[in-house]
Amino acid sequence: MDTIPADNFTVELQQLDTTSRAERAKWLLNSPEPPSLWHKITTLLRDTVSPLGNILSSSADRPKGGTGTVVCFLQGLFPILKWGRNYKAAQFKNDFMAGLTLASLCIPQSIGYANLAKLDPQYGLYTSVVPPVIYALMGSSREIAIGPVAVVSLLLSAMIQNIIDPSLDPTNYRRLVFTVTFFAGTFQAMFGIFRLGFLVDFLSHAAMVGFMGGAAIVIGLQQLKSLLGINYLTTKTDVVSVLDAVVKSLHHPWNPLNFVLGCSFLIFILVTRFIGRRKRKLFWLQATAPLFSVILSTLIVYLTKADKHGIKIVEHLKGGLNPSSVHQLQFGSPHVGEAAKIGLICAIIALTEAIAVGRSFASLKGYQLDGNKEMVAMGFMNIVGSLTSCYAATGSFSRTAVNFSAGCETVVSNIVMAITVLISLLFLTKLLYYTPIAILASIILSALPGLIDLKEAYNIWKLDKLDFLVCIGAFFGVLFGSVEIGLLVAVIISFAKIILNSIRPSTEEQGRLPATNIFCDITQFPMATKTSGMLIIRVDSGTLCFANANFIKERILRRVVDENEENTKERVGVLVLDLSNVMNIDTSGILALEELQKKLTSQAIELAVANPRWSVINKLKSAKFIDKIGAGRVFLTVDDAVDAFRHLRMTALSSC
Amino acid sequence: MDTIPADNFTVELQQLDTTSRAERAKWLLNSPEPPSLWHKITTLLRDTVSPLGNILSSSADRPKGGTGTVVCFLQGLFPILKWGRNYKAAQFKNDFMAGLTLASLCIPQSIGYANLAKLDPQYGLYTSVVPPVIYALMGSSREIAIGPVAVVSLLLSAMIQNIIDPSLDPTNYRRLVFTVTFFAGTFQAMFGIFRLGFLVDFLSHAAMVGFMGGAAIVIGLQQLKSLLGINYLTTKTDVVSVLDAVVKSLHHPWNPLNFVLGCSFLIFILVTRFIGRRKRKLFWLQATAPLFSVILSTLIVYLTKADKHGIKIVEHLKGGLNPSSVHQLQFGSPHVGEAAKIGLICAIIALTEAIAVGRSFASLKGYQLDGNKEMVAMGFMNIVGSLTSCYAATGSFSRTAVNFSAGCETVVSNIVMAITVLISLLFLTKLLYYTPIAILASIILSALPGLIDLKEAYNIWKLDKLDFLVCIGAFFGVLFGSVEIGLLVAVIISFAKIILNSIRPSTEEQGRLPATNIFCDITQFPMATKTSGMLIIRVDSGTLCFANANFIKERILRRVVDENEENTKERVGVLVLDLSNVMNIDTSGILALEELQKKLTSQAIELAVANPRWSVINKLKSAKFIDKIGAGRVFLTVDDAVDAFRHLRMTALSSC
Repeated sequence: MDTIPADNFTVELQQLDTTSRAERAKWLLNSPEPPSLWHKITTLLRDTVSPLGNILSSSADRPKGGTGTVVCFLQGLFPILKWGRNYKAAQFKNDFMAGLTLASLCIPQSIGYANLAKLDPQYGLYTSVVPPVIYALMGSSREIAIGPVAVVSLLLSAMIQNIIDPSLDPTNYRRLVFTVTFFAGTFQAMFGIFRLGFLVDFLSHAAMVGFMGGAAIVIGLQQLKSLLGINYLTTKTDVVSVLDAVVKSLHHPWNPLNFVLGCSFLIFILVTRFIGRRKRKLFWLQATAPLFSVILSTLIVYLTKADKHGIKIVEHLKGGLNPSSVHQLQFGSPHVGEAAKIGLICAIIALTEAIAVGRSFASLKGYQLDGNKEMVAMGFMNIVGSLTSCYAATGSFSRTAVNFSAGCETVVSNIVMAITVLISLLFLTKLLYYTPIAILASIILSALPGLIDLKEAYNIWKLDKLDFLVCIGAFFGVLFGSVEIGLLVAVIISFAKIILNSIRPSTEEQGRLPATNIFCDITQFPMATKTSGMLIIRVDSGTLCFANANFIKERILRRVVDENEENTKERVGVLVLDLSNVMNIDTSGILALEELQKKLTSQAIELAVANPRWSVINKLKSAKFIDKIGAGRVFLTVDDAVDAFRHLRMTALSSC
Repeated sequence: MDTIPADNFTVELQQLDTTSRAERAKWLLNSPEPPSLWHKITTLLRDTVSPLGNILSSSADRPKGGTGTVVCFLQGLFPILKWGRNYKAAQFKNDFMAGLTLASLCIPQSIGYANLAKLDPQYGLYTSVVPPVIYALMGSSREIAIGPVAVVSLLLSAMIQNIIDPSLDPTNYRRLVFTVTFFAGTFQAMFGIFRLGFLVDFLSHAAMVGFMGGAAIVIGLQQLKSLLGINYLTTKTDVVSVLDAVVKSLHHPWNPLNFVLGCSFLIFILVTRFIGRRKRKLFWLQATAPLFSVILSTLIVYLTKADKHGIKIVEHLKGGLNPSSVHQLQFGSPHVGEAAKIGLICAIIALTEAIAVGRSFASLKGYQLDGNKEMVAMGFMNIVGSLTSCYAATGSFSRTAVNFSAGCETVVSNIVMAITVLISLLFLTKLLYYTPIAILASIILSALPGLIDLKEAYNIWKLDKLDFLVCIGAFFGVLFGSVEIGLLVAVIISFAKIILNSIRPSTEEQGRLPATNIFCDITQFPMATKTSGMLIIRVDSGTLCFANANFIKERILRRVVDENEENTKERVGVLVLDLSNVMNIDTSGILALEELQKKLTSQAIELAVANPRWSVINKLKSAKFIDKIGAGRVFLTVDDAVDAFRHLRMTALSSC
């Protein structure tokens, strides 16, 4: 308990303090009008609707007028115009080698992911030609490797095959894929232009970790079809249906040769990766192993004529340039609404992955990425892609890592890769006729462990149990429901968490830290001391509103009863309510405060309010609550409130 | 800008201060483990599941054992056992007069509300017999007048007639009404027993104001049917459908006599109310006007035989005691799920109204109501009601006001009223045969202005624009949609508000108030001064999570850029992040802080954290964020952080 010093000097000093305390309270009570809701909305809209200039030019090089403006505009839209002028031959040498390495990994992966997306293999290769070039012109990441990725491919096939079965109607299925890609690109560009990037944030880090893990397992299960040489598997993606279908298929005759071939090359790829990780110099082994596997296995099948003995092969792989797909977009089809919905989901998932990849490598090299500009670049790359027979592309984590390790300097490595893939499309597709499908499956499988981040899941568990719930919610949702259910579960749990925090906030009792005027939670700081006859309570919520006002009121009243029971020597005479944390109050909150004051008054307890924030003090004033408790009961700090009441009591005691 | 004093004494003093500052930081860093999530959940569950004892006995009279326990238990359940022992004859005299006054208002209103609920008139009277008696035994409000009310009657008929048309199948309609009433009572009792009263809070004050206003207009429109003597009106309740139906009906022959009769008595009742409000002594005029109107109009119709000339009359009004309706409850019907849903909505609306009424009159007389106990009482009164041919009853605002003005002392006035209504049911129902239906409509219409609270709506507009949006959302939802749509709109807007506040929080720059160590928002307190070379930013959000972490990070980085542009003399060297308001942080929040730190470091800006709260400091420690920024960069207060850096800079300067 605080003791009260009583010599004359201190009393004078306290009087001096009283005046400045009153002054401080006056500062608080007379604070200017806070910005109105209207002002807030217009600011938000201005920030949202007119940022085109901001996107196109960074603050460092604002247009100075005339030709400068146009140049700046173009440089903002196409960053390559800016850094391209200083591009050196030495940089190109590095980019060229990185691009070739990237292509050797990209060609087999693209064919495999096209297979996962239930498209013909060449569409995967097309997707590795146009989008990387567009991104190279518009994007600002230097390391990211653009092309088809596993999760987006799965997402597309899992959702679109519910509308059109690709095995029955491949043409219309493909058209719908292009339409979805167009929508995805449009949404991504819109997000960037209208600064709606925060929508991507709604998939929290924890949700993505769980979602990726679940998707990796689902993708792995899908590969069982190719690995076991089964002709037809269920169109459902959940674990139970797929395993059930696999077990049923195994009752029919199946060819173990596919399995042996796939597994041996999977082991080979994994071993090279293990070696590549151990010895940084041998990393090319890891990067080229997939292409090497494809070439070797194709040769084996061609020489042994294994395709006649049940080994499934790619067969037809149409070569040539990306054909136009402008006329394949179906805006008049009855499925256009669903295509837009799937496009939105793909847009968000693709952006989340690309931005995570881009940011983590940018921070390794110490430069910044503008999320909104990146979204515009991704959006245009997918829009153009959808017109040139590409499906949704984004930044691939595994290939970006290879690009980085291969020593890429700029995004030119993507252009080199695209040209290499284009050359393969023009001249080498015939050679891939005998490539076994099981090898594609093993290449996809070898990329999956990178998607399952057990260490991060454990970190999340350690840090935040509710976040972990989001993570496993997404994981099991994808695994046992579908990709959409997984995402929905994660988003619902995430928002329920926010609402739960708002409706059940805690209230903490404050005490003074020794030899300071700082008041802190007495459970967190056991050295803090209570002030006798006073109860100081802080409301731990950013808002005092309909959903929590009554709860908080009841909690405070119960705390008063408990305090009186604990400390029978001196009853609570003053309740100091510290509103430091409360940013907003609504009419229900004000009503609850009024009821609290009435009930406290009926128990002969005075109510004081400390540190109400700007909009709170404003609303309390206009609701006449300040008049009800008295302007002298509002303080800038808890310390001021405690001092004022102690001073009051001392004067009362000395006048006795 | 603060200036730095440099004499020896100050330096010593500062060194002394440094030690205690370090000590304070240590208190923060070494604070004990916060309560785990598991502990929080068990506390919440214990509070929720085992409060039966708390409900049945207040803290003042906890059971002492043996017979005492049983007595306490019974007294907790039936408060009348406690205050009844001290009940005096003088009190009864007052209660008797109040009860008679109440009955004179209650009889016509009950018949009218039964009409609104599309039930035969006697069911309204039944509902004014059993529930008031049960409430009198179990409830703790002294003024509340129990019985049928307008809004709940409308709610029942509006929702149940979508399932069964009362004009086609009145028997099954009535059975469903009793089933719904049973469910409503059960939900209410459950809310009380399991302390789920917070569910009622989800209908915020603003939502109720809007909902009541909209419902009043809808009820008024429903009365047009009786007032115009139309036989059939649409079953929809929205303004457009009803007005459309009325206009169409007017093309058919209709009888203006009904209208004339209804309107003249409506004017009479409104005039008496006006007089009663002006002169408190004449308030009995207002209270008895409805009964007087019924008697007078019945006499007129009987004497003039107006029923033969198109005046619609009540006709059959079955007398006698409340019959049992136990066998009419339909738990096996296919509509039982919908009945439960409607029951839940009715339960919440009825409780919201009753608790608002009870609380406001309790605070007038200066006593407290236990919300949970009230819910148990309301629940049992409706359960028993549903077994004795009553439909959902609750506390009526208009009748409670009359009861209060008539000088009631205890809830015994409800018993007197119930007995009076019972006597009327037994002996006087035949007299009501000729009562014109238009009079019932005018009695309902006269009660509606009390439901439309324009003054409160204006207050809400003045205090909180978003709250007003909730209010008019509910109002127009009820008016142009349906009662459920109105409620849904209000609840959705309310929760969207909470989420919006969480995803778009503000960040404020802090400055030191003159001659203090208090740091405040520099826009709210223009007298606050910035510290040169430092940027102090407070995050105005209760949670730093996936939904806002990136937004906050970007805002802070932009503020750094702006600050450097504004003040070109001295670059920002230190960013102090005041986390006082942040109660929770999740993994996305920690990631954002880590990115913030990396980006600041790349700009040669140091990051310091001030006052992270209990769970935040704990998570930052286990995520190794504290190790990354250094334990010396964590401070208990902003003042400590500013002092530390100023001290550091001074030592650096003096060593030059």
